[in-house]
Amino acid sequence: MDFIQWFVAEKAAELVALVHEAGKEAMMFLGDNWIGTEPYGPYFESIGLDAVVGSVGGGATLRLISDIPGVRYTEGRFLPCFFPDTFYEGNDPCIEARENWLSARRALMRKPLDRIGYGGYLSLAYQFPEFTDYIEKLTDEFRDIYDKIHGRKPYCGLKVAVLNCWGRLRSWQAYMVAHALWYKQTYSYFWMLEALSGMSVDVCFLSFDEILSSGIPKDVDVIINAGDAGTAYSGGSCWEDEKLVSLVRRWGHEGGGLVGIGEPAAVHKNGRFFQLADVFGVEKELGFTLSTDKYFTKPLEQHYLTQDRTVPFDFGEGMKNIYALGEDTEIVEYSDYEVHLAVHPYGKGKSVYMAGLPYSCENTRLLLRSLYCAARQEEKLYRWYADDPQCEVHAYPKAGIYAVLNNSGEERSTTVYDGLGRTEQITLEAGAIRWKTI
Amino acid sequence: MDFIQWFVAEKAAELVALVHEAGKEAMMFLGDNWIGTEPYGPYFESIGLDAVVGSVGGGATLRLISDIPGVRYTEGRFLPCFFPDTFYEGNDPCIEARENWLSARRALMRKPLDRIGYGGYLSLAYQFPEFTDYIEKLTDEFRDIYDKIHGRKPYCGLKVAVLNCWGRLRSWQAYMVAHALWYKQTYSYFWMLEALSGMSVDVCFLSFDEILSSGIPKDVDVIINAGDAGTAYSGGSCWEDEKLVSLVRRWGHEGGGLVGIGEPAAVHKNGRFFQLADVFGVEKELGFTLSTDKYFTKPLEQHYLTQDRTVPFDFGEGMKNIYALGEDTEIVEYSDYEVHLAVHPYGKGKSVYMAGLPYSCENTRLLLRSLYCAARQEEKLYRWYADDPQCEVHAYPKAGIYAVLNNSGEERSTTVYDGLGRTEQITLEAGAIRWKTI
Repeated sequence: MDFIQWFVAEKAAELVALVHEAGKEAMMFLGDNWIGTEPYGPYFESIGLDAVVGSVGGGATLRLISDIPGVRYTEGRFLPCFFPDTFYEGNDPCIEARENWLSARRALMRKPLDRIGYGGYLSLAYQFPEFTDYIEKLTDEFRDIYDKIHGRKPYCGLKVAVLNCWGRLRSWQAYMVAHALWYKQTYSYFWMLEALSGMSVDVCFLSFDEILSSGIPKDVDVIINAGDAGTAYSGGSCWEDEKLVSLVRRWGHEGGGLVGIGEPAAVHKNGRFFQLADVFGVEKELGFTLSTDKYFTKPLEQHYLTQDRTVPFDFGEGMKNIYALGEDTEIVEYSDYEVHLAVHPYGKGKSVYMAGLPYSCENTRLLLRSLYCAARQEEKLYRWYADDPQCEVHAYPKAGIYAVLNNSGEERSTTVYDGLGRTEQITLEAGAIRWKTI
Repeated sequence: MDFIQWFVAEKAAELVALVHEAGKEAMMFLGDNWIGTEPYGPYFESIGLDAVVGSVGGGATLRLISDIPGVRYTEGRFLPCFFPDTFYEGNDPCIEARENWLSARRALMRKPLDRIGYGGYLSLAYQFPEFTDYIEKLTDEFRDIYDKIHGRKPYCGLKVAVLNCWGRLRSWQAYMVAHALWYKQTYSYFWMLEALSGMSVDVCFLSFDEILSSGIPKDVDVIINAGDAGTAYSGGSCWEDEKLVSLVRRWGHEGGGLVGIGEPAAVHKNGRFFQLADVFGVEKELGFTLSTDKYFTKPLEQHYLTQDRTVPFDFGEGMKNIYALGEDTEIVEYSDYEVHLAVHPYGKGKSVYMAGLPYSCENTRLLLRSLYCAARQEEKLYRWYADDPQCEVHAYPKAGIYAVLNNSGEERSTTVYDGLGRTEQITLEAGAIRWKTI
């Protein structure tokens, strides 16, 4: 695989050189497959591209493009495409455009693209003046955001690492092929990435190989491992390695936070399925210990994780047959004879287990709270924070500004916490962004 | 394990000898654990017991007792126990007694116990005269059934083998510990046994070892393999053995019928999870081939399996991510992007896949139809058959009699087919049994 990456990058560099000799810029469209030109691969920068452009399906795909290192600029193509499947008499293309913009904008606030655009037949779009008006407003908003925050580091309350077999090579891209296509088997994990893409946390991607050779970076507060057993995302047989298990366990015991979704660290060995069951405080019943009583089934009435939750839990595909191992496991949700959400203290650290995390702003909030809970920094959540899950705050301390976003299509009123925890009540129109100085 | 069985049986035989020396009969209570005295084990008969008595939770537990070889007689203790949890002011103990009797009676019609009884405090039962009246009626019914059919072989339309790691040793007892206790992880499989216990088919239990050493018995029409992957009931790593896979595949191709429930023949190897995926025509997506399109998703509008079904499907815990492999897979039920019921022709044989089979008389019927379908003897179903799933026919050709049972608590009217397929309309009171001569 490494040879292919090196070989293709070398050939691509020759093509880029030809483009440059002709006095043009070389731009790559980040499509569904790019064997050897993976933007986060080790040979990518050597290709010498000027720019990468790609399709923006939401926040995670935006960050997939905007975080690419080693190019002068990045560009995102937003939705909808100007195609007859959306642009026909009786349909309002603004709906898709607005949803796309609002889901991508929160990621833009973390790391902006340098340019945005649309694709398709202009002759179709011209027939929808409301659409072109909306896009004018949207592009003005983009320019305003870009001018204000480009090159400025946003406030990050925590540093979060997504740990899987791929690590950095598939930054923002785990659980995905062909952009953000929906898969029944992965949508309950993908939202973890989508939620992170616009969250006030610093995100990095680590591989098992990397932490085995270099250890877990000192500045990481929380590690997330999420996926079905046996996949590259959970880790499969990698967890048979005692060194990996010990490394993560020790890190957790010494104060690290762990968030597991679905079947984290799962491989059937050593009398366990979740190799970090002692850390997570939960395990999966595979059918081998049916008559061993599962004593701990009572959920807590209140918990930090759910303090601002107003809708029922939704774990998507969820995960069957998870049970709590002891009374120190804080069961947050239990139904159908299964634990779906639990917190477990482990040494100086803490872990959160969730059965799945499908799409919703409430689940974005659940993940955010899980991260602060796992990091044992519960109170730090209330800095640059909006208590309404539909709203988010992005702050740029060095620039002396912050923005409150309404990510929803309706007017919202929310309490906003500044960097010192001082509160203010703010009402925002549908989809509004409000800039303020610190 | 074999040594323990031999050792315990030898010690038990010494105790039985003491009992016999004292001029008494030796009777074993078949409890929750009986290490070494397994009634279907190789050393059981050498113990020399006169009888076995056990608790009857339903049909499968009745057959577990009544099929025991090598004892002079068997006895079943029916429910409810005469304990204060059932026998208290304001509760009607007849309800549990009736449900217990009706679920066990259909198994009794296949192979009767020699004696029945109840347990608990008689002083409690005496206070419920309606209960004692009902038990009098029930015991009369038992005596009548026993006199008519004891020692007489009932009509069996097919011979069905349940194939797992245990085989005969755990006859009627797979998926169970401590009798018929409910387990979330097994109830969707256990009903296969419960359904079979009172069905007009001959049932045997085969182990993988046994068919590897002696082949599949010539008279077996259908093999059932049912369970979660990795369990003794599905077979786990046994299916890594090419000889086992080839043996069952060849048998299926040459005309054998296969019924798979849950994760049959499942172990991840050879690019497959279901090692008999080619036979079943379905496979499970584990997350490794997400972008391989699953083309075959359209269920048939009508199918033999569901001709008399009037209620929605219920697959219990079901099974996620099952898909059809080709257009020759007859999809009977498809929902939530998954196949839950399918039929697949394979050579001269046929297979049925179902995602789960929890409790209901409709599911008993579904299994019966699946067996005849897999055996390619669809029309033979209509012999000694009642078209109402709540009713069943048991025939004793050599005795020249048959019985039509209403297994439900309400009056039913059903078309009854005799041994030549001639029909008659019969109406039966709640729980009634109607004897007729051939």
